[in-house]
Amino acid sequence: MAKKYSIKDVAERAGVSKASVSYALNGVKKISEKTRQKIFKAIEELEYEPNLAARSLSSGKSKLVGVILPITETGDVTSDLLEKNPFFSEFISGLSYVLSQYDYDLLLSGMNSNITYSNWIARRRLDGIILLGIYPKTIYEEIKKLNIPTVLSDVYEEYAQDFHCVHVDDEYGSYLATRHLLDLGHKRIGFASGTIKSSKVNLKRFNGYKKALREEKIEIDENLIFETNVTFEGGLDVAEYILEKKIQLDGLVVVADIMAIGVMKYFQDNGYIIPNDLSIIGFDDIRYARYCSPGLTTINQDVVKKGMLSAELIIKELETKETSKESIVITPKLIVRGSTTNKKEEKI
Amino acid sequence: MAKKYSIKDVAERAGVSKASVSYALNGVKKISEKTRQKIFKAIEELEYEPNLAARSLSSGKSKLVGVILPITETGDVTSDLLEKNPFFSEFISGLSYVLSQYDYDLLLSGMNSNITYSNWIARRRLDGIILLGIYPKTIYEEIKKLNIPTVLSDVYEEYAQDFHCVHVDDEYGSYLATRHLLDLGHKRIGFASGTIKSSKVNLKRFNGYKKALREEKIEIDENLIFETNVTFEGGLDVAEYILEKKIQLDGLVVVADIMAIGVMKYFQDNGYIIPNDLSIIGFDDIRYARYCSPGLTTINQDVVKKGMLSAELIIKELETKETSKESIVITPKLIVRGSTTNKKEEKI
Repeated sequence: MAKKYSIKDVAERAGVSKASVSYALNGVKKISEKTRQKIFKAIEELEYEPNLAARSLSSGKSKLVGVILPITETGDVTSDLLEKNPFFSEFISGLSYVLSQYDYDLLLSGMNSNITYSNWIARRRLDGIILLGIYPKTIYEEIKKLNIPTVLSDVYEEYAQDFHCVHVDDEYGSYLATRHLLDLGHKRIGFASGTIKSSKVNLKRFNGYKKALREEKIEIDENLIFETNVTFEGGLDVAEYILEKKIQLDGLVVVADIMAIGVMKYFQDNGYIIPNDLSIIGFDDIRYARYCSPGLTTINQDVVKKGMLSAELIIKELETKETSKESIVITPKLIVRGSTTNKKEEKI
Repeated sequence: MAKKYSIKDVAERAGVSKASVSYALNGVKKISEKTRQKIFKAIEELEYEPNLAARSLSSGKSKLVGVILPITETGDVTSDLLEKNPFFSEFISGLSYVLSQYDYDLLLSGMNSNITYSNWIARRRLDGIILLGIYPKTIYEEIKKLNIPTVLSDVYEEYAQDFHCVHVDDEYGSYLATRHLLDLGHKRIGFASGTIKSSKVNLKRFNGYKKALREEKIEIDENLIFETNVTFEGGLDVAEYILEKKIQLDGLVVVADIMAIGVMKYFQDNGYIIPNDLSIIGFDDIRYARYCSPGLTTINQDVVKKGMLSAELIIKELETKETSKESIVITPKLIVRGSTTNKKEEKI
């Protein structure tokens, strides 16, 4: 395998004109079947695999699946994203692993402001799309028109029914988390999340939290609901606020591990002992949940599997041409590590 | 922007035959400049941007840069990789950020056993390649023959001179780390790394460690050199070994943050206090070095910047056609956090 594919090489080998080769590659029916076969034989003998750009024109398939990543407030899509939240790299790991089994490659969005998503998808002739996170509604409309296999992850809005969906049972996960703290004897249980009103994921998790408290006839205390950014820094902020306002808490349900790790670090750096001074439970079960000390008790949503299932939905639609939309809900699991413990008498 | 590009649409709009359109797209010179311009005007009026598969055939440019990721022992490339070592996602963040500024997209390798690297590169008509990690020598030879802009990261072997290279000054970084522990008054300083003989990166870091000790006339003690896997689990193993064998240590230089975090967790989970019982310093300054408690003192090699510089080397070569090879060495910096402290009397 050495030089790049050239139409001239193929034409010479097949004993036809270069124009015939481009007809064949472009699926133009001006040449006989015999000529077409000669050309494809030459392509094979030249050892490739015509390059996929050419093949994409003839078959309409690029063997590329694109991932569109959520835009951060600062506008720099990926510089922030993969690195700040390990959730995304785990999702992409699962995705790319399955795609490679079927000889598909993974294209990362690398959006910039000069291009729209649908232009990007059309220009690259993507065979499928995976959207992580929430976008303006118009983007879904644009993508719907392209009519290619598309998977949304963690989207509950009504337009989601036009696409394949993969999500975790968010309400149940949060219920499990709160139930775990209740079972340990905790009563004053806080809830830390992003703005509840602006995200259906947060809302569902909030509902799970409320449901568990209601089972124990514990009233929701507005002072124990903390809404900020779902980031490590957001976690630091929540912890600082709790300590500064001297808010009495036994346990804290946090909607994301990365945020829970921020809460934990702030408490530990200020001399508090986790879990003795506060039981903390996260959500996601990212790798770091295992790396910190104590390990973070959390709700496992198997992010790698979520990525794998997304890839499988795309490939299934491509191979079967079956276009009805599937919605897969992953049932989350409680993972108990060291950051939660039984209620004791003295608390912060 | 709605339907996909079709040669027929363009031909109708331009008032030419479909064959002429394919000539134009394939750069075949059978049509007049006037016809060519009519065709490209039609393509523009139809609002695209012919798809990049077509454009790649005509310009020879795919606007795709590929990243080849190191293969793990288990053979599953990415399922493991992005998720286990945050180093890679940070590198890719920087890379993809710069590429998007120039309208390039990033293709992740998704290798499987049916395909060779150079086949993949040729089939995808990649404009450039970035290799992370170490591969069999034949792979470099294959890639060299393709004659496209290629950047290696962290490779010191002699064949590296045929490519652009980006690395951190590994010896100096490790010297800085060891010097920091010496300056804190530590004398019995260990070194934890992967197999030193099998990796030039490890060897250089070992040399930096030895150099600093030599300045203080401290003899190298073989019993304080720990060689295992450069992973979180490798860190756990080193810590377990140190505690089990009751090895007396004041400080430990670890070649990667992810491994240092494993060491730290094992000590903490077993009731030891970091840094009081052991000063630990890592290498890389991954995000998690800031997230753990105490924060991990480490050597910053600005992995995001490394990714950005790699992208810039590729783009510079593509745009200037200047093919002489550059080697960029990043000077690392000491970042002091909570995992190192002054020598006290009682140690483990």
